[in-house]
Amino acid sequence: MAEVDKDKLYQFLLRMGDNTLILGHRVSEWCGHSPVLEEDIALANTALDLIGQTQMWLGYAGEVQGEGKSADDLAFLRDAWDFRNVLLVELPNGDFGRTMMRQFLYDAWSSIMLGHLQKSTDERIAAIAAKASKEAAYHVERSSGTVVGLGDGTEESHNRMQAALDYLWPYVGEMFASDEIDLAMAAAGIAPDPANLRDEYDALVGRVLDEATLAIPAGNYVHKGGRDGRMHTEHLGHLLCEMQWLQRAYPGCEW
Amino acid sequence: MAEVDKDKLYQFLLRMGDNTLILGHRVSEWCGHSPVLEEDIALANTALDLIGQTQMWLGYAGEVQGEGKSADDLAFLRDAWDFRNVLLVELPNGDFGRTMMRQFLYDAWSSIMLGHLQKSTDERIAAIAAKASKEAAYHVERSSGTVVGLGDGTEESHNRMQAALDYLWPYVGEMFASDEIDLAMAAAGIAPDPANLRDEYDALVGRVLDEATLAIPAGNYVHKGGRDGRMHTEHLGHLLCEMQWLQRAYPGCEW
Repeated sequence: MAEVDKDKLYQFLLRMGDNTLILGHRVSEWCGHSPVLEEDIALANTALDLIGQTQMWLGYAGEVQGEGKSADDLAFLRDAWDFRNVLLVELPNGDFGRTMMRQFLYDAWSSIMLGHLQKSTDERIAAIAAKASKEAAYHVERSSGTVVGLGDGTEESHNRMQAALDYLWPYVGEMFASDEIDLAMAAAGIAPDPANLRDEYDALVGRVLDEATLAIPAGNYVHKGGRDGRMHTEHLGHLLCEMQWLQRAYPGCEW
Repeated sequence: MAEVDKDKLYQFLLRMGDNTLILGHRVSEWCGHSPVLEEDIALANTALDLIGQTQMWLGYAGEVQGEGKSADDLAFLRDAWDFRNVLLVELPNGDFGRTMMRQFLYDAWSSIMLGHLQKSTDERIAAIAAKASKEAAYHVERSSGTVVGLGDGTEESHNRMQAALDYLWPYVGEMFASDEIDLAMAAAGIAPDPANLRDEYDALVGRVLDEATLAIPAGNYVHKGGRDGRMHTEHLGHLLCEMQWLQRAYPGCEW
């Protein structure tokens, strides 16, 4: 493994693990509330996969940080300003269509990113990616199928999916907005520069949205600030408030 | 002051203070979101009055309990199952009409209850009631005016107020459902048996709802479980999660 700044590697791992943690929590909010039983179980399984990936990313992040923190410590005892997830994954679920559109837009990125990470010079990262990419491949197959089914469905479902895409699209760009941390990872062969994944992403997403008869909205505005921790949406604080309640109210509890 | 079981007195004070705490927090959620500026300020002032009353009730509760707990400790470090407010005050705000209807239904009870408590054999309680009842008299004047204005307003506002009353009415009965704690307070001359306040309440509320052209729904079902701590609605946990976040995340913080 090439030499790399430990703090930058830690930040990179937080970005990976916070994405899966926050999206996993959001998806878990559907548990018991989905439109049909099969979707309820599928969403719960997706959430569990994402939380499982979180365990690996944040577990490694804690080791790299070297302050004796576990994945649980990082998940449950940090505040909003220390989270490094992209804004896309912290947005509220909205209706089932918006949840699945968000899932698809994330899964497409995740499946591509994890494919590249399997070739990481960091063996731990390559191993996590090898395990997680099997799940991501299944997730993107499922979410793209739902996006096509609802987008090219009834007038009502089409309109809802288009509205979801219009709402979410300005948050997509942040997944590809690279900075000095990404460049350091790329230079060390640890991870690809996300900016270089955009063409592959656009090809995959474009093909699915085309089949779904959905139009990518015009405009280039990109909401960002999550993955570099400058500014999260107001939604993250509320999410953490619920997610961290137990660990905050009963510090150090075990069972 | 007559002899009374300390734990029962503590429970009585929790009931008083938890009502004002939880309703005060609920009303504070409107801050910055009210339909017009004047209502925003009025609601914020109402919330502050209620939190001020909480300070007195829970402050005294902590003294009676004798474990060195402050009003802040009781407000911010108890869990849902230890709260003793009636379910009415923890219900979500809904629209402005429902918030004002809930306020009126509470204010009517509060103004009557506090009037009686001014004659309490417990001097501390009589003093708190004397101070709080001035505020309560103003609150009920204001909320009853809004109920009449919106109830006897447009078709839209009338329908919303009737819907609010239909939703809230089954929660009114709990304020008058007395138990052994109330009977002990009544026997010691500390507080009236709430069951004996019902006629006075029905006269006041009936007069206002009549003027508001609103009909009290049929049916005798009473939602309860809050003031005896048997069972709160799911809404209380979410409210506490937000209300207690700071004290849970930063134990013992001061400023």
